[in-house]
Amino acid sequence: MAMAALPLNIDCCFYDGTENTPASQLAHVEVGAFDDHESLIEWAQGLDVITYDWENVPVDALRALKSVAPIYPKPNALKVAQDRLFEKNLFTTLNIPTPGYSAVNSYTDLLKAIAHHGLPGILKTRRFGYDGKGQFRIKNSHDIETAWQKLKGQPLIFESWVNFEMEVSLIAVRSKKGECAFYPLVHNEHHEGILALSRAPYLHPKLERQAHRYLTTLMTELNYVGVLTVEFFVLKGKLIANEMAPRVHNSGHWTIEGAETSQFENHIRAICGLPLGSTEARGYSGMINLIGQLPKPAAVLALEGAHYHDYAKDDVRPGRKMGHITITATSIKQREQRIKAALKTLKPSHPPSKRQS
Amino acid sequence: MAMAALPLNIDCCFYDGTENTPASQLAHVEVGAFDDHESLIEWAQGLDVITYDWENVPVDALRALKSVAPIYPKPNALKVAQDRLFEKNLFTTLNIPTPGYSAVNSYTDLLKAIAHHGLPGILKTRRFGYDGKGQFRIKNSHDIETAWQKLKGQPLIFESWVNFEMEVSLIAVRSKKGECAFYPLVHNEHHEGILALSRAPYLHPKLERQAHRYLTTLMTELNYVGVLTVEFFVLKGKLIANEMAPRVHNSGHWTIEGAETSQFENHIRAICGLPLGSTEARGYSGMINLIGQLPKPAAVLALEGAHYHDYAKDDVRPGRKMGHITITATSIKQREQRIKAALKTLKPSHPPSKRQS
Repeated sequence: MAMAALPLNIDCCFYDGTENTPASQLAHVEVGAFDDHESLIEWAQGLDVITYDWENVPVDALRALKSVAPIYPKPNALKVAQDRLFEKNLFTTLNIPTPGYSAVNSYTDLLKAIAHHGLPGILKTRRFGYDGKGQFRIKNSHDIETAWQKLKGQPLIFESWVNFEMEVSLIAVRSKKGECAFYPLVHNEHHEGILALSRAPYLHPKLERQAHRYLTTLMTELNYVGVLTVEFFVLKGKLIANEMAPRVHNSGHWTIEGAETSQFENHIRAICGLPLGSTEARGYSGMINLIGQLPKPAAVLALEGAHYHDYAKDDVRPGRKMGHITITATSIKQREQRIKAALKTLKPSHPPSKRQS
Repeated sequence: MAMAALPLNIDCCFYDGTENTPASQLAHVEVGAFDDHESLIEWAQGLDVITYDWENVPVDALRALKSVAPIYPKPNALKVAQDRLFEKNLFTTLNIPTPGYSAVNSYTDLLKAIAHHGLPGILKTRRFGYDGKGQFRIKNSHDIETAWQKLKGQPLIFESWVNFEMEVSLIAVRSKKGECAFYPLVHNEHHEGILALSRAPYLHPKLERQAHRYLTTLMTELNYVGVLTVEFFVLKGKLIANEMAPRVHNSGHWTIEGAETSQFENHIRAICGLPLGSTEARGYSGMINLIGQLPKPAAVLALEGAHYHDYAKDDVRPGRKMGHITITATSIKQREQRIKAALKTLKPSHPPSKRQS
């Protein structure tokens, strides 16, 4: 976001729990705890607007900053997105299809939920789950006890297993004036619960219309300002909302090269009250996540249509998103060839697979 | 260049004569004089490679740094580009057409040059001229004395006036291994000696072939590494070399959005020994320089296909390049409509006109 703000002459400064965050390469990062409201308020003095790109920022931290500067997206959107139960309740209220679910606060709740929804299903923590963490798949009755032992002691949710055909996401942006713009639908592939590969545009006008309707409803309901992402399962020509992210999203990183205006610039435009930019795709794009590894830059840069993004994180760790490669192409065929060539620069790993997280 | 280097995880630090340079937004800028070799050498400790984006860096400063780290483009290319006489001598040696010229060190030299080349012509300082500064057009014999009084006391050059039809530039890049890549030909319009508007690609295969030949010859001769730009006059279907710039060039700013790889990234790739990226155009682009003024950002951002670049310079001054707008389009017609709309966001000014600088 700082890179997108720079050509617009919008200065950014950051607050984070750790030093050496990628943002520190081009802006000041104040290091502090999110529950240290005094530090937060001091840091925020003089800011025109505040935003966030991480959904585990405590809502209380945002509320503490409310009197200093406007915050977009509003804390309420974050509150909903932080809790799988609130999120699914909101989807349900707004008639957005979502997998069957029940809140689970006790072993009895879990048994009742399974009796109601059947198996297979997934037991998940309501909060702090990401990249497939904090969840346990219950295939049959033998898994119930293990799942409970693994996750008990925190607010949980049981969800029906959706035997989906594919996963897509829609990235939308809403301005202060209430204008909405939508990037093309993105087709996502996950590997071990982590987004591995995105392709855009995923051309399916019927699904796209459904997704536009759902996100318009959501953003209007939340009086949303900024970029909002919803991940959907696709089943029998219909969308089933899995989760929402009140921020720029990994499945939209291809927009830097692959869309007329990047998701980052449009988020900045929205929260700063500037007109939204075109969300149109430029050709066909792919986005390969670099998870727990970084290829040789020269190997990637030697490829036609490959754009390398190394986040300069301090440490390569298994499962950590270290960067991404954007593939640009003028046809789907060319994109697939280029994705294949780019994947060859990576260390061998399991192929991307379906997940429900 | 720092912005292009960032996703490649290449750290930049800068040395400049003044504070508050645009680069200070995202990297450390050491402020010092270019003749303070001690400071320069101290600043350069630990660097892997050194480059420059300003042709008035003293060649001696680069030579002083030679033992610390490799410098690309090599100081010799800078030496030639800094002096209109050396530049034209090189063009002539390499059989690259250039306007008739003579060195002028005295009033007698000037009279001899005019007798030889005829009028109209231009008297120019050999060094430190840019954006139409340091030159005087001699239309007829009455102007000779005025031109001399205005410019005498420094090494000069007299050039024949070329009644050119248009101006184009070619931006090329050469890797350490000697691979050359060329951006499409750019059509440039100037206003009061300053580049006002560039359009790319300028589709003229015959001229493009000529330009490729000339730049290949130049880069090979100089054993060049990095981006090199040559501005040409077009006259009767032929190119006449006006000047060269051993750096990324204003007429290539459109490549950020309008080419597969920007001139900035390709310069960084070349000097770092990385493979060059594709120089292919993505659709049709225009680049409007924001000279001595900045429009309302919201007015620009409201336009389809307009990308705003504010360099965040500390002071708006007449004739100063404050930023630029890139126009992206899928057809020439659409580009022209979009350029027209973008020009309307600027304060009225004289229309761009031809110049020979």
